[in-house]
Amino acid sequence: MVRELSTLEQVAGLLGWDQRTYMPTGAAPDRALQNSVMAGIIHERLTAPRMGKLITILKKQEIPQDGTVILREIERKWKRASNVPASLVKEISKTGALGMEAWAKARKNSDFTQLEPLLDRMIGLKARSAEYIGYEDKPYDALLDEYEPGLKTGDMETLFKRLTGKLAPITRKIFDEPVPKSAIPADIYLLEDQRTFLSALAAGMGFDLNYGRIDLSAHPSTIGCCRDVRITFRYQESSPIFAIFPIIHEAGHALYEQGFQEKHFGTPLAEAVSMSFHESQSRLWENMVGRSLPFWTYYYPQMQQVFPKFKKVPLGAWYREINRVTPSFIRTEADELTYNLHIALRFEAEAAIFSGKLKTEEIPQFWNERFERYLGLEVPDDARGCLQDIHWSGGEFGYFPSYTLGNLYAAQLWDAARRQTPEIKGRIAMGDLTVLRDWLRTNVHRHGKRYGAAELMKRITGSEISEDYFIRYIREKYSWVYDISLGAAPKIKIDR
Amino acid sequence: MVRELSTLEQVAGLLGWDQRTYMPTGAAPDRALQNSVMAGIIHERLTAPRMGKLITILKKQEIPQDGTVILREIERKWKRASNVPASLVKEISKTGALGMEAWAKARKNSDFTQLEPLLDRMIGLKARSAEYIGYEDKPYDALLDEYEPGLKTGDMETLFKRLTGKLAPITRKIFDEPVPKSAIPADIYLLEDQRTFLSALAAGMGFDLNYGRIDLSAHPSTIGCCRDVRITFRYQESSPIFAIFPIIHEAGHALYEQGFQEKHFGTPLAEAVSMSFHESQSRLWENMVGRSLPFWTYYYPQMQQVFPKFKKVPLGAWYREINRVTPSFIRTEADELTYNLHIALRFEAEAAIFSGKLKTEEIPQFWNERFERYLGLEVPDDARGCLQDIHWSGGEFGYFPSYTLGNLYAAQLWDAARRQTPEIKGRIAMGDLTVLRDWLRTNVHRHGKRYGAAELMKRITGSEISEDYFIRYIREKYSWVYDISLGAAPKIKIDR
Repeated sequence: MVRELSTLEQVAGLLGWDQRTYMPTGAAPDRALQNSVMAGIIHERLTAPRMGKLITILKKQEIPQDGTVILREIERKWKRASNVPASLVKEISKTGALGMEAWAKARKNSDFTQLEPLLDRMIGLKARSAEYIGYEDKPYDALLDEYEPGLKTGDMETLFKRLTGKLAPITRKIFDEPVPKSAIPADIYLLEDQRTFLSALAAGMGFDLNYGRIDLSAHPSTIGCCRDVRITFRYQESSPIFAIFPIIHEAGHALYEQGFQEKHFGTPLAEAVSMSFHESQSRLWENMVGRSLPFWTYYYPQMQQVFPKFKKVPLGAWYREINRVTPSFIRTEADELTYNLHIALRFEAEAAIFSGKLKTEEIPQFWNERFERYLGLEVPDDARGCLQDIHWSGGEFGYFPSYTLGNLYAAQLWDAARRQTPEIKGRIAMGDLTVLRDWLRTNVHRHGKRYGAAELMKRITGSEISEDYFIRYIREKYSWVYDISLGAAPKIKIDR
Repeated sequence: MVRELSTLEQVAGLLGWDQRTYMPTGAAPDRALQNSVMAGIIHERLTAPRMGKLITILKKQEIPQDGTVILREIERKWKRASNVPASLVKEISKTGALGMEAWAKARKNSDFTQLEPLLDRMIGLKARSAEYIGYEDKPYDALLDEYEPGLKTGDMETLFKRLTGKLAPITRKIFDEPVPKSAIPADIYLLEDQRTFLSALAAGMGFDLNYGRIDLSAHPSTIGCCRDVRITFRYQESSPIFAIFPIIHEAGHALYEQGFQEKHFGTPLAEAVSMSFHESQSRLWENMVGRSLPFWTYYYPQMQQVFPKFKKVPLGAWYREINRVTPSFIRTEADELTYNLHIALRFEAEAAIFSGKLKTEEIPQFWNERFERYLGLEVPDDARGCLQDIHWSGGEFGYFPSYTLGNLYAAQLWDAARRQTPEIKGRIAMGDLTVLRDWLRTNVHRHGKRYGAAELMKRITGSEISEDYFIRYIREKYSWVYDISLGAAPKIKIDR
């Protein structure tokens, strides 16, 4: 039953991939129906009475350790699915579909009031579903738990407070620096050339094309359908930079999906620990590796071969280009540093909404005030403010924090990888990326959901999860990039 | 429930399309599991107790005419699925998987005895399933019925006897003629150029790319997932001919799928009458239109633009090239005339097998004798004889006759279209293919499964189904192509 569920999810995943890549436009209404039928069957299978019975029986028996993990995870899923009435699930899905339509219009007109009624209804529905799911401390915990098992609102509040506190003096200094001029030579960077270089990058990271694909789509994504892992990218002819970092990011996700143990496929032992752990893999590759000097020491000459115009751009200029920090309105265009401020603001809004402290109508004002506090910019309109993301209109609350957690985990893992494999940067500079891939495979990928996020991090790094690794990484790197002092790196105590 | 079933079949169809086009090779074992889970769910839904109850209740009620059709068809499907025990279905599917593997090896070694034990088991299983499905006259009826509702072995025997009898003197005369030399200029015909021309052909026929795609695959195919209809093709760099006729063929299928009425999607009113009716659409376009002079009067100059080497080949030489009739061993490479002799032989073998007159071990001898009788060639080995098709090893018995029925229906429909729309050939010569598409849409496509094959044919053409239209078409055409007398065309009485 567990494998059947997983197989159905793979099929649903493939429908999603097709929708992003090759589906003819006219098929959209049919696809919506196909998706909803598949979702209905998955929900029906998960909440079938025999699933509950099986779980009860198995819990009374002695089962091997692998079985315990599978049982724990399937019970978690089953509980979340069974506790919420089907009528409410449908209502959320329907409101989400309407909401996303309304969002597209509202964003186009940059008018929050056009989304407000549906968003308000969605918030009410999600609050109700949180009550059904259940929580210890705060309703928002129930929403966070979907993406980050066991994570509590209170812990996140503390974490984000510490993080924004430590980032503030750093960003202030960097924002004062002059913004470097673009180093990208004006040219038409042909799709086929970009594809050549991107494939070389993904293959160099160890992405296995016997078990995967790389295709174009409107938004970059990774879809894992068991052994079959597909990444998608978009590109701009004006610069290869728009495709390079997303492809490294997606290949980082894909290596996680390709790194599970074959014998565990179809079970939670071949699933990511959490959304944030998945994100840690993509971010580690994209930022810690993909925006590093050792990486480009090897790959920049290759890139210059494919895009000869770059021969006149020195490596140093390229390195500064890809590590430019500057405040901006749109989250998805933000650099690795300010990105977390965009997330902090979203988390704070969500936490306030579900504790009843923030009314739907007050969201724009809340957003704009926080945005100016964190990024020093006055939000000119809702489109560049609280209407920029699709998530809330579709009902995805509790999702954003995973992005920043992913950044923090990435820095902590990267720190451990370098301590445990001191040759890693040298090997990367020689173009050997599989040292890191293998380290991640051994330490992260192969465990699947065996351990929770906190436990796994402790096992790998010897320490509790902390924002200090990220802060230290940022300080070290950007002191160097901008040649300014960003304060001493925080001292980190390693327990083992 | 009917729409849900149809939706699940669309999803299963998409899995098949992906498997043929873009699936990475390593994903094959996962895909097998995904296919079998989907097939299991479709079977489970179809045979669920509530389906039977619903059918019983609806049959007692007054329902509108559309509902009657839907009820009739779903009951037919439900009966076929419910009567066969799940254990037997599984056994057939397992034996089929093993059989197809054994077939690949046996064909490679050209040794029928390597397939024989599994084929014998499969025949036994299919015979058992025929007993469960039920039949009036002969067990083979139950197998035919899967592809051709209501068709009887006896009727097919009579039809094939008449057809082979009438074809024999024609083929004898043509085989005596010298085989014309190939007119294809030696060149490398690039994929991109071929794609350009093929897309123009499909679009000219009225294939709507807003609701469809054209992709490469190992075997040409059409996959209809509701409004979303995808055709695939293969090509050879040595000649565009290998891709042109399959693409016209598949686009013919695709127009049927795109021609159903929108309001009926998801019901049998948006499904083909039968396999043979589907095949009549592909064959009509491929042979009656695609191998005709009017068609190439318009398209040949276009083709010469795309492939300039053809500028030195006159239209007449091209026309003879694409209408060459010559006996050959492999069905899929046969011309439109001898193709039906390949099918007659297969039908006769199947009918003999399931009436107990032909033992599995005797198949090669039976095959080789008939082959020589019909095509005048001595079969040199099993690979070019009874091992050439995958169908039997996978359990597909009763499938082959639809190919020839498709050819006969195509000729009969083409005859009616020309009588009812006398300008049709002139319009085709001007490149206007939509006259024919619209005629087919009105007369065939939009009815879905409303009428059975015989009734629909009578409604459209005013006559019973007959092989005489095909014989007349063949006589007229090949008298002209080979400039020989092939006897008077049979007189056909039109009832209305």
